[in-house]
Amino acid sequence: MTTVFDPYTRLAELGLELPSWKSRYEWFERTHQVGDLLFTSGQVSTIGTEPVATGRLGAEVTVEEGYASARQAMLNVLGLIHDDTGDLRLWRPARITIYGAVAPDFTALGQSATGASQLLVDVFGPVYGAHARTAVTMPNPANGAAIEVDAIFHRR
Amino acid sequence: MTTVFDPYTRLAELGLELPSWKSRYEWFERTHQVGDLLFTSGQVSTIGTEPVATGRLGAEVTVEEGYASARQAMLNVLGLIHDDTGDLRLWRPARITIYGAVAPDFTALGQSATGASQLLVDVFGPVYGAHARTAVTMPNPANGAAIEVDAIFHRR
Amino acid sequence: MTTVFDPYTRLAELGLELPSWKSRYEWFERTHQVGDLLFTSGQVSTIGTEPVATGRLGAEVTVEEGYASARQAMLNVLGLIHDDTGDLRLWRPARITIYGAVAPDFTALGQSATGASQLLVDVFGPVYGAHARTAVTMPNPANGAAIEVDAIFHRR
Repeated sequence: MTTVFDPYTRLAELGLELPSWKSRYEWFERTHQVGDLLFTSGQVSTIGTEPVATGRLGAEVTVEEGYASARQAMLNVLGLIHDDTGDLRLWRPARITIYGAVAPDFTALGQSATGASQLLVDVFGPVYGAHARTAVTMPNPANGAAIEVDAIFHRR
Repeated sequence: MTTVFDPYTRLAELGLELPSWKSRYEWFERTHQVGDLLFTSGQVSTIGTEPVATGRLGAEVTVEEGYASARQAMLNVLGLIHDDTGDLRLWRPARITIYGAVAPDFTALGQSATGASQLLVDVFGPVYGAHARTAVTMPNPANGAAIEVDAIFHRR
Repeated sequence: MTTVFDPYTRLAELGLELPSWKSRYEWFERTHQVGDLLFTSGQVSTIGTEPVATGRLGAEVTVEEGYASARQAMLNVLGLIHDDTGDLRLWRPARITIYGAVAPDFTALGQSATGASQLLVDVFGPVYGAHARTAVTMPNPANGAAIEVDAIFHRR
């Protein structure tokens, strides 16, 4: 049997629920489409308003918690796209940028960042989930959360 | 009467003057167009070469000064676009990235970043000024200034 | 005689060798194409796995070493593009982002970042090598290296 990576089926199989975005931001958009490109606003690693892990990688937050944080931040990005466009199946990732709040000397951001990349492959499959990525460090958590992610998606 | 958001009229009404860019950078461009997209180089929160506020948010720079800094950095972006393309009315923002230099424990970057978002809405109106955005922290000021902004605009 | 900036001829004249990318990343792509745009994954300033200079600008790494680091990180980006698309001559830079790991009070990132910009002009020439750019600071080195660069290229 051929596996078809329908993102909604995959999310259900993974036991993941897309966040529901009841309210819009006051000053900016959650996503902005230009032709075949879809730019998303930065999303932090929170479930609702609660950070998956509070603080900086290498201090209050472990590499594993950072992985879970990156996965959640990316799930929040998918929630934005679903909510704004109505259909995740129209889209695939082009490039994602992962910003990790870090303590001095923390050097394992790549391992944590892979939580975001893995979610895309889990949900969209190895072909349509493939993406370029950049992972960089920042000094302070974003709304308390260790990871912030933004993305450029494009038409599938 | 219908309000038409002509960016030049709005800038005049807001008492804002576009910076005049006399000189080009030596090593890179101020803007780069690809089809309907216009990428801008990062702009810092200076009036001429003088920072709106010198230092880091949460230390030498207050949230309110950060707001004014983000607004000025975005005004500088608009100056680049006007200067390179000759007509701001051809363009609208797609995504902006706001980098804020912060002291440890500063958590209110979003409030300062809104200075950049608000300027876009003030100048282009709520429809054409709408944009996706990401705000992230960085350790050091950019040429002494608290805020740096870059942007992707697209054809209106 | 008219100078034609063939990137391969220029690389040879400059004594530069494109890195050979034997292996793919496990979780993400090195480049991702969307129509005329080519997004690259972030590249650090290493020759193979060895950083050009280890540590942060303004502490363990000088401005000049930072310049060499930015140049090398950009050379690695060109290696990715050659390897994935088979022909550097099809592409030109649109915007690059340079992330520099810095010590507190280091203020000369722009000088180091110019290593990346200069390489593009050296290899593609002043017309096709022209690009928008953003340079921002980050707290920690990327895999030990002082500079990380990502880029958006487009069809020449």
